[in-house]
Amino acid sequence: MNNSKLEKLSEYLSDKKEKISVALSKENADVVLKNATYVNVFSNELLTGDIAICNGYIVGIGEYNGKKEYDMTGKILVPGFIDGHIHLESSMVNPCEFARAVVPHGTTTVVTDPHEIANVMGTQGIDYMLQATEGLPLDVCFMLSSCVPACENEENFEPLEYTDMLPYIENERVLGLAEMMNYVGVVNSDESVLSKIVLSEINGKTVDGHAPMLDAKLLNAYITAGIYSDHECYDFSDALEKVRKGQYIMIREGTAANNLDALMPLLCEKYSSRCMFATDDKHPDGLLYNGHIDYIIKKAIKNGADPLITIKVASINAAQYFGMKNKGAIAPSYLADIAVIDNFDDFNIEMVIKSGEVVFDKTLKDFAEPNIDKNLVERAHNTFNLERVTEKSFETSGELGLLGIVENEIVTKNLGTADKIDVDNDILKIACVERHNNTNHIGIGFVKGYMLKSGAVATSVAHDSHNIIVIGCNESDIATAVNYIADNKGGIVIVNNGEVVSFVPLEIAGLMSEEKLSVVNEKIIDAHKKAYELGCNKDIDPFMTMSFLSLPVIPSLRVTTKGVFDVDNWKFL
Amino acid sequence: MNNSKLEKLSEYLSDKKEKISVALSKENADVVLKNATYVNVFSNELLTGDIAICNGYIVGIGEYNGKKEYDMTGKILVPGFIDGHIHLESSMVNPCEFARAVVPHGTTTVVTDPHEIANVMGTQGIDYMLQATEGLPLDVCFMLSSCVPACENEENFEPLEYTDMLPYIENERVLGLAEMMNYVGVVNSDESVLSKIVLSEINGKTVDGHAPMLDAKLLNAYITAGIYSDHECYDFSDALEKVRKGQYIMIREGTAANNLDALMPLLCEKYSSRCMFATDDKHPDGLLYNGHIDYIIKKAIKNGADPLITIKVASINAAQYFGMKNKGAIAPSYLADIAVIDNFDDFNIEMVIKSGEVVFDKTLKDFAEPNIDKNLVERAHNTFNLERVTEKSFETSGELGLLGIVENEIVTKNLGTADKIDVDNDILKIACVERHNNTNHIGIGFVKGYMLKSGAVATSVAHDSHNIIVIGCNESDIATAVNYIADNKGGIVIVNNGEVVSFVPLEIAGLMSEEKLSVVNEKIIDAHKKAYELGCNKDIDPFMTMSFLSLPVIPSLRVTTKGVFDVDNWKFL
Repeated sequence: MNNSKLEKLSEYLSDKKEKISVALSKENADVVLKNATYVNVFSNELLTGDIAICNGYIVGIGEYNGKKEYDMTGKILVPGFIDGHIHLESSMVNPCEFARAVVPHGTTTVVTDPHEIANVMGTQGIDYMLQATEGLPLDVCFMLSSCVPACENEENFEPLEYTDMLPYIENERVLGLAEMMNYVGVVNSDESVLSKIVLSEINGKTVDGHAPMLDAKLLNAYITAGIYSDHECYDFSDALEKVRKGQYIMIREGTAANNLDALMPLLCEKYSSRCMFATDDKHPDGLLYNGHIDYIIKKAIKNGADPLITIKVASINAAQYFGMKNKGAIAPSYLADIAVIDNFDDFNIEMVIKSGEVVFDKTLKDFAEPNIDKNLVERAHNTFNLERVTEKSFETSGELGLLGIVENEIVTKNLGTADKIDVDNDILKIACVERHNNTNHIGIGFVKGYMLKSGAVATSVAHDSHNIIVIGCNESDIATAVNYIADNKGGIVIVNNGEVVSFVPLEIAGLMSEEKLSVVNEKIIDAHKKAYELGCNKDIDPFMTMSFLSLPVIPSLRVTTKGVFDVDNWKFL
Repeated sequence: MNNSKLEKLSEYLSDKKEKISVALSKENADVVLKNATYVNVFSNELLTGDIAICNGYIVGIGEYNGKKEYDMTGKILVPGFIDGHIHLESSMVNPCEFARAVVPHGTTTVVTDPHEIANVMGTQGIDYMLQATEGLPLDVCFMLSSCVPACENEENFEPLEYTDMLPYIENERVLGLAEMMNYVGVVNSDESVLSKIVLSEINGKTVDGHAPMLDAKLLNAYITAGIYSDHECYDFSDALEKVRKGQYIMIREGTAANNLDALMPLLCEKYSSRCMFATDDKHPDGLLYNGHIDYIIKKAIKNGADPLITIKVASINAAQYFGMKNKGAIAPSYLADIAVIDNFDDFNIEMVIKSGEVVFDKTLKDFAEPNIDKNLVERAHNTFNLERVTEKSFETSGELGLLGIVENEIVTKNLGTADKIDVDNDILKIACVERHNNTNHIGIGFVKGYMLKSGAVATSVAHDSHNIIVIGCNESDIATAVNYIADNKGGIVIVNNGEVVSFVPLEIAGLMSEEKLSVVNEKIIDAHKKAYELGCNKDIDPFMTMSFLSLPVIPSLRVTTKGVFDVDNWKFL
């Protein structure tokens, strides 16, 4: 046993002594939640008592006195909620601001996959997120991004190999390997893929899946490889098959995908112990207007789910899946992560306790922002490495692939080719500009369905490699938009006739803003408005839709830095 | 990450590739269980399919071909059973023979606490048991004995401190700290006690409890200290309180204690996920005539428990509690530990598969015996270190404590004192002879309720320190019995008029025999017969009853090597 473990021993001993003393009522608790009616996730019932907290943990339920006491009469206490899978970057704000957004919704733990920032900054992206989430009133745990880049046809900052994961896999906040999207690599026994899985396994950690609708034998192979969960189920029978084969199901209800309605039959006595909730992506509007895991709980209960089952799915089940000890329950020896609600029907979060501290009580309490290494902050704010582009950079001759946008879907249609912009017929130019390693790679094609009538729209949120993607009615505005993003360290921009008409700065890795969530949201609303004013198709989200047009793993056509890629036939046009 | 982990990587990789290939039906499985109807512990139902096994693990369920195939039509397959808490020594045979006894009953994993042998041999006892259980067709996992000796008033070979546990706690087969009987030490924050708990905790392992009927705050403190289960519940309300406070309940049904009837209400939807089965002690007759975990399952089902719930309590629940990954279920990526039964009502075990091998199919298959270090075997067979005793060694004058045996209980009555043997009035002499460290300590008292009319009975199974305990009608036979045990490396002996009339050799640490279970059982039957012939109370088990009379933690009077101890007043008489 190494010395660092032994050094912990005396620290743990004095902590234990204090807790035991409070449990016995020899000393007053730090905090007592008096007369609490709480959900007991072990005995599946509501029980009542004073909940005594010492050193951040629940040490007893019964009759207790505390240095601070809160009367909980008439309230219901539930374990703090756990988001089983999210990419924090999707909130478009820094992790500290993300915490400010979700803590008032009763979330006390999220498991993040820093997939987006890792595509932009490599392991420094993971370092940044680890440091940016240290000491928040929200436990941020990590799964190491398994597919960076998403496939070999993408140009990201640099690939993440299993050897890059070695310094991270033993970190206590790292719970395993994130969504293994590359199921083809898994079932073909690709060594670089399997090595990542094995690395997680030999460190006693878990591996998340990402594999909707695999056929029976592919699923057997994928699970046999060591993949223990899935958050991509949009079909009940697919989810049930995965439960039967031993996977945990993360019922996803986020911004881009909403699977709760389809998966409601899982929320019953028979299957629910193998389920948890996840959001995957939460954009600013969703965080501001809907909430977080509490939103899913409310919806589930409205849909008819049993509240106690739903609470367990939102708390202890995720803790069990991830092997988080002493978390997800209101019981002695458990971390005092608690949400206080009014009742199951309205489900208003009235107070949130994180590690024994009241962090939200009608209003959010101030907390210290994490201390991030200055060089790392500097690095995160300087991720654009490309030369200025010009109108000429985007001029083309001859036939190029034509992507057809499908409303409410992220798949595209293969509409053949086009050879020039034709605004009247909604044939616009689309490009993906490499921005990590100054390769001057610019992939160009055409797109139909975006409906812009004038100007150009560009964003540095372009899955999964986060190069700059741009759609425009002319090459001049396209070039202006791309340069503006590069000059301003990232963001979403709308340009018309050479003028920037709207801009959402995303200066952290081109993905997140340092501003307040509400400010970011207002800027996005303004950008939406301006895009629609310029004619953009009102039945799509102009930025989210565009951000997926560069991801060359989703059918049918995508624009990458190397040109238009035909996913169905797995080749560049 | 250390090198030994990295070295595993390539080994794991090739194993995974083979399994994936079989899962995809690119290659035939090692074994296929065709047309299997099996209990799915995740979806809580019976399902049917071919179960494909590769490298010891289930890799797929569906349609598969195998190098070996077994038709399972008409049978029910359930996950192999797990005994959550046992002292293997209680079987009185060596661990290999124990495996021969329980494998045909569908048991594929036991969690043993080597408490008995550790009292006799210290850490060498743990070494012996680890080596004696390596490679058996039964996974034997360990919990490190927490209370060796049981209390400071016992003289065992040597005390086991937390520092002694350092070389073991990281062992993969060690799952944590065994039953923490010393609840007083826990709630009083005794550092030597808490250090053992913390040691287990910082290594990510669990701690078993042993604390019946604690009051609410003592229980809060005990759980807060980090104790996650209890196997001592004989009362439903006590068990429910522990479930509510987050402990797992091991429903115990063994030789010495039978709690299933009282705890039947736990075997329901609401509570059962926090329960598992344990035997604690299984003597040869119980193993031969009743079985093991299968016996508890049968009894539970006969008592009205739902078979699927009962199977889960016997398998996956224990795996989850102990953090045993990939065990306790029939699903891809799970270890192929499977029991084949005829039906839930008769529950006859027809076949047992351990790690993919058919180890029992009407008859038990041969298997290699573990290779134990010769010096360790030699040491285990030479644990008696005492000088010969004589009649004089047991002569006394004056008043000594009188223990009153209570039928069907292990508590005794404090019957005051006696000053001499009075066979007609059932006042016999009882003594406990120190046998580990040649201290010449002999504690002597009197006992009523044993009813022997002639001769003496002695055993080296004398909880928990396993000195030699003897009851006799005269000092001469007492001395003969003690010397015979010492000369023969341990066992149970009956002496009458200077002659040995029956002997059960227990030459491994004075606790276990190297002979076959059936032979040991026959010898015990003979010894019982002879003891009863000499007048011993037929309403008690003469040896089991005697073996607890030396344990100075159970009320009221006990005989130790240092004299008669008054447990109620915690002092020697």
